[in-house]
Amino acid sequence: MYKEGRESRKAVELARDRVAKAIGAEPNEIYFTSSGTESDNWVLRGISTKKGKHIITSSIEHPAVLETCKDLEKKGYEVTYLPVDEDGLVSPQMVKDAIRDDTILVSIMFANNEIGTIQPVAEIGQICKSMGVPFHTDAVQAVGNVPINVKELNIDFLSMSAHKFYGPKGVGALYVRKGLRLSNFLTGGHQERGRRASTENVPGIVGLGKAIEIATSDIESKSAYLRKLRNRAIERIEKEIPYVKLNGHREKRLPGHVNFSFRYIEGESILLMLDLNGIAASSGSACSSGSLDPSHVLLAIGLSHEVAHGSLRLTFGRDNTMEEIDFVVDKLKEIVERLRFMSPLYEGVEKEV
Amino acid sequence: MYKEGRESRKAVELARDRVAKAIGAEPNEIYFTSSGTESDNWVLRGISTKKGKHIITSSIEHPAVLETCKDLEKKGYEVTYLPVDEDGLVSPQMVKDAIRDDTILVSIMFANNEIGTIQPVAEIGQICKSMGVPFHTDAVQAVGNVPINVKELNIDFLSMSAHKFYGPKGVGALYVRKGLRLSNFLTGGHQERGRRASTENVPGIVGLGKAIEIATSDIESKSAYLRKLRNRAIERIEKEIPYVKLNGHREKRLPGHVNFSFRYIEGESILLMLDLNGIAASSGSACSSGSLDPSHVLLAIGLSHEVAHGSLRLTFGRDNTMEEIDFVVDKLKEIVERLRFMSPLYEGVEKEV
Repeated sequence: MYKEGRESRKAVELARDRVAKAIGAEPNEIYFTSSGTESDNWVLRGISTKKGKHIITSSIEHPAVLETCKDLEKKGYEVTYLPVDEDGLVSPQMVKDAIRDDTILVSIMFANNEIGTIQPVAEIGQICKSMGVPFHTDAVQAVGNVPINVKELNIDFLSMSAHKFYGPKGVGALYVRKGLRLSNFLTGGHQERGRRASTENVPGIVGLGKAIEIATSDIESKSAYLRKLRNRAIERIEKEIPYVKLNGHREKRLPGHVNFSFRYIEGESILLMLDLNGIAASSGSACSSGSLDPSHVLLAIGLSHEVAHGSLRLTFGRDNTMEEIDFVVDKLKEIVERLRFMSPLYEGVEKEV
Repeated sequence: MYKEGRESRKAVELARDRVAKAIGAEPNEIYFTSSGTESDNWVLRGISTKKGKHIITSSIEHPAVLETCKDLEKKGYEVTYLPVDEDGLVSPQMVKDAIRDDTILVSIMFANNEIGTIQPVAEIGQICKSMGVPFHTDAVQAVGNVPINVKELNIDFLSMSAHKFYGPKGVGALYVRKGLRLSNFLTGGHQERGRRASTENVPGIVGLGKAIEIATSDIESKSAYLRKLRNRAIERIEKEIPYVKLNGHREKRLPGHVNFSFRYIEGESILLMLDLNGIAASSGSACSSGSLDPSHVLLAIGLSHEVAHGSLRLTFGRDNTMEEIDFVVDKLKEIVERLRFMSPLYEGVEKEV
């Protein structure tokens, strides 16, 4: 009812328009949340259970989906965790075969955070549409990296997170196709058209809106640049460092995403030494850092515990240069050599070779 | 595992220390959330139901508590909504009498957002402690305005929201007394010591931490200044505008908070005209703005629908001056006079008088 409030409202609605435009949706299909995790929780916990309590997902989902499914299992839901092939791909046929009369949701991520594999979302969307089952995709890794049109892909719910496309941390969004209903996750005031209570994170929302506009404008040329960086890294690592394995699909993968297993050494040790050289990388999933368990994703694509522990994820951004890629690979080469030299596991290999 | 990440972690932990210090808690009792609403939802939905499903709250809680309780009632919980007296006070004796063997939580707000009344939190905390029932308080309006020590007040859970004490929007916190457990509300990654999944809102958290440090330093003199502004507004309005009623307790109220009912006119009309004069105020609850229903709080303290509709809330901040208070009251006087002149309800009154 006052000027400052109206200005904030206007800014929030402009952001909503921008998000809608970026993914081919209508503004009234967009809800702002505090994170991709909240968006995922909202869909999984809020989907109607009138038809039943069966959910289909994959074994390589982000913890926001996977842990939520596990929690729902304790509450009487039944969850089918589809396996993936050695590239991390979900089979659309398996999705189809898993659908039952009491299936209330299919939740398959758009692109995997750890191995970068991009799923056959269009095929899965088509199957879900034809069988009348709502389709959710956690697109946190994909938005801003891959062109997405929710209508063309038959996506019913889509989660995103601003900081994955250069927006601020602490804000996300959820696309809910018109006509579909979710029960409220955060109850209270009437914000977000009565669907998500909490004072709006106005600066975060404004940042998300601007960031998605920038990230999705000329997305093809931006992606092409990242692919160039990525392919260079992959090519050099495979050529110059022995006993490595690229994890995730070689082509169907996020443009700026590389994940390798380096045999006979620990990913954590690589990270420590990369950090000493000013290089920020990760091993396993960022969200489980601190955990000593090997990544559930790497195990799902068939890696042994030992090999999974020797994995490293590098992600490149629009500000990275080809020189930086070369610097990283040069350093990585040195580090891997040094660590293997110190590794009792590698000793035998050296002798064999 | 890299420098940038460690710096963020350090900044988040410094903020946690500041929050803990501000309310007399330990850092490991503080969890960051996206809002006061999320903090409230977390407690109400996450409290253990081993002993039962009975919750005690008041009829004037913020919608974040009230709507969540209504939702829980649909899920088999039983909720006692305690009435309040004409000043908006909850009776500690009534809390005591309402506690049963299956009571799992008492949730009474620290200070009311609409009428400013500060509840007898110490007495309620003492009762809950002696009867072994966890005590939650939504202190969103109180933190930064009123000195709070959770140990002295025997508070087990406390919700706060940064933007209420000059921090950024989109971030809140929850205090959970050591030894008490809540099931996770947002499931996924291991952030917040495994209790609240989502990438941390680092800038928001840093802002919250600094804001609470500033707001709670020298809180007595800051509150005294706000009380001076508030008392001036109350004194002048009561003296210079006829047919008004101060809502909420006269002394036990937030330092910068004024709520009046102006008979024979609509609060919304007052707001519109205040806005034309550059004055930002609200009527009813900000969180239900857009709703035509009269405020549940004003009805709970015994106002008729008609009188409740004619209410106005003014809140003063540390940057307001005495001159601004006088300007607001001068304008308000003019506006109320003009609106009453146009009001068919007022016509008869004028003639009677």
